Amino acid sequence: MSALKPVQVGLLGLGTVGAGTLAVLRRNAGEITRRAGRGIEVVHASARTLDKPRATPTAGIRLSADPRAVVDDPGVEIVAELIGGLDPAYELVMRAIANGKHVVTANKYLIALRGNEIFAAARAAGVTVAFEAAVAGGIPVIKTVREALAGNRVEWLAGIINGTCNYILTAMREEGREFGAALSEAQALGYAEADPAFDIDGIDAAHKLTILAAIAFGVPLQFDKVYVEGISAITRDDVLYAEQLGYRIKHLGFARDTGAGIELRVHPTLVPQRRLIANVDGVMNAVLVHGDAVGPVLMYGAGAGAEPTASAVVADLVDVVRALTTDPGNRVPHLAFQPDALADAPVLAMDAVCSACYMRLFAVDRPGVLADITRILADRNISIEAIWQKEPAEGAGTVPIILLTHRVEERAINDAIDRIEALDAVCGAVMRIRLEELS
Amino acid sequence: MSALKPVQVGLLGLGTVGAGTLAVLRRNAGEITRRAGRGIEVVHASARTLDKPRATPTAGIRLSADPRAVVDDPGVEIVAELIGGLDPAYELVMRAIANGKHVVTANKYLIALRGNEIFAAARAAGVTVAFEAAVAGGIPVIKTVREALAGNRVEWLAGIINGTCNYILTAMREEGREFGAALSEAQALGYAEADPAFDIDGIDAAHKLTILAAIAFGVPLQFDKVYVEGISAITRDDVLYAEQLGYRIKHLGFARDTGAGIELRVHPTLVPQRRLIANVDGVMNAVLVHGDAVGPVLMYGAGAGAEPTASAVVADLVDVVRALTTDPGNRVPHLAFQPDALADAPVLAMDAVCSACYMRLFAVDRPGVLADITRILADRNISIEAIWQKEPAEGAGTVPIILLTHRVEERAINDAIDRIEALDAVCGAVMRIRLEELS
Repeated sequence: MSALKPVQVGLLGLGTVGAGTLAVLRRNAGEITRRAGRGIEVVHASARTLDKPRATPTAGIRLSADPRAVVDDPGVEIVAELIGGLDPAYELVMRAIANGKHVVTANKYLIALRGNEIFAAARAAGVTVAFEAAVAGGIPVIKTVREALAGNRVEWLAGIINGTCNYILTAMREEGREFGAALSEAQALGYAEADPAFDIDGIDAAHKLTILAAIAFGVPLQFDKVYVEGISAITRDDVLYAEQLGYRIKHLGFARDTGAGIELRVHPTLVPQRRLIANVDGVMNAVLVHGDAVGPVLMYGAGAGAEPTASAVVADLVDVVRALTTDPGNRVPHLAFQPDALADAPVLAMDAVCSACYMRLFAVDRPGVLADITRILADRNISIEAIWQKEPAEGAGTVPIILLTHRVEERAINDAIDRIEALDAVCGAVMRIRLEELS
Repeated sequence: MSALKPVQVGLLGLGTVGAGTLAVLRRNAGEITRRAGRGIEVVHASARTLDKPRATPTAGIRLSADPRAVVDDPGVEIVAELIGGLDPAYELVMRAIANGKHVVTANKYLIALRGNEIFAAARAAGVTVAFEAAVAGGIPVIKTVREALAGNRVEWLAGIINGTCNYILTAMREEGREFGAALSEAQALGYAEADPAFDIDGIDAAHKLTILAAIAFGVPLQFDKVYVEGISAITRDDVLYAEQLGYRIKHLGFARDTGAGIELRVHPTLVPQRRLIANVDGVMNAVLVHGDAVGPVLMYGAGAGAEPTASAVVADLVDVVRALTTDPGNRVPHLAFQPDALADAPVLAMDAVCSACYMRLFAVDRPGVLADITRILADRNISIEAIWQKEPAEGAGTVPIILLTHRVEERAINDAIDRIEALDAVCGAVMRIRLEELS
């Protein structure tokens, strides 16, 4: 076992994830070697600033300011891209592949947007691009969906795949905060970026959903077809009303194979409180996958952070080491399905998607308002599961009205919402949050 | 892709799991081939009764009453052993290995008791023995611990790995049943065998824990060193008292690397209600693994049943198919660690294990009883977190007393329990249930 030379790894980036990966590789070198059958050694790393003091010592590692020096280093067998973003990560990954090196990456943005080309280039070069760390940090969702559920037709999947959103929604529920206050708190704790748009607007979750859907359903990566809605319009009262009805509001990435097409959507969602996934709180992530044979499988863990992400990066390194001598045609395909066997199932237009809905609106408290609203819904064949008129806030001239509908097509409910908002007695916009039973 | 000849599989057993595996392989043949790159075809199967009507048709499959005919069939490349039990499964698996065939098995009993010899034989023959279905049915815990957490030092793991016990404990809590009534209900629903001892006494869970601990800590399989306690002594009142204190009683397999040795224990356990694993109810299973890098990872799903188990069997078949051309030295080691790199960490004697405890006893309601009990505990340096004297049941001459202790060594608490039981005022045995925070 120890006779084999350690595998030589090049790290691009010594930020949070890069330093975490280095720390884990060193601390657990014994365990990793005992498992992989040979050592995994970082020999070359790139960093923007070379002379900065680092918590993880880099003695024995060649450091370069230019990441291309790592990618072009003939001694490097596997490149771990831990810079993030599209530029220069895309160019570096393609160059590593062209140099015949395997790549491990934690970059969901890169895989979601450029994965199709990257994987084609990797196949042509006979190398592997591994990306477990790109979705849900330390939780092995890629491996599970791609390998462990290989006998299943995946029917749908739902994921809490953005820790920032989950932290904010948890704080709104547990501490009764409004969105803005919860966001500020998340920023103060380092759970949200100074510019939080990527997280709270759902873009980050959409990157991850794009990847999950591709490997679950055997379709190409299609980020531009994901419907995306963030959490900034959710109010504390919505969270409270949902709770009173037996639901939690979670920001979910959701994908379903309807037979007629694939639903790809990221939005706040009411989920029954009794579901395990509804009880995943704070910055933690979870992904629930429903296979036709296995039924529901849920995976839960840390979706971000230095060492949880490093855990996934190292697992990928070990997998790549094991595959070094494997005939490339026998490796696990990048997108789970053989590249010549991807499905051409269309992504459903959001207009054609069906889901149950929660609606909250404010109306002047006078006779006939509920009759007008229910008539608009009835005219569009939308069936109402329940309707509540809440107590008005003190001094408010309007009362909150909450409705739950049965499953309805988006185009019908959108049309109904337009008509309801046009009613004289209705003030402001209708808040609509989709609801999924996840059973 | 379709140019490759399908892999030829032999099935031992057409019972629940065998029939389920056949059904999944046929129904999802398209998906499986698209993933694996070639078809997986059952060509030969053994069954005790050949002419019985079957829900899953066996047309095109050679059927034999003698399972050795399958194992000796030169056309069979992979044998799926789905008979269960030690005899004749052990002989058949060893014979398949001797014949140079790969083996997939769902048999936890066999792996826990004979795995060390079986894996040695498989290594010598250059074949793989895959056993994902042996632990927690459809939940990919073997793959996750063995591959996805390869960068971690596993600190501890805890699993709800017996659906029968979990069903009974859930019914006791949700429906207020006593153990016997809940067991009868489980039997009527097919969730418990006519002879339920293997399940409710914890033997089945101990088989699974043996396997999990080996792959988590890199130690050999050591079933005979697992401490095992079942659930039949738990009363409805214990479940209720635990609930009032903020805990759920779960039957857990628990293993921890203490540094001084490995704890291996299966017993009822109080778990804080707010933990996700405390909310895994009914026949569902879950395994929580704590790695030093990733932190907690929880996997949840169906731990038994025809198709969930078949899901794991088929995933193993696909993995084996992918490894067919791989150098055996590069495959994932059977027990996660290279066979020459297993640890010789001892299994801790139960006497030396530490945990917090719940105790419930009945005592005559007279002054001085609490003083006697607390003195016995104080003399052994056992610190008490809380103590309650409950209302006596109507007409009862005794009152229930509940104690929670801090972490204490087993030998100390066992000695204390002996002394408490010897008190005149204490009636009957002390019920002791260990408590784990799982944080």
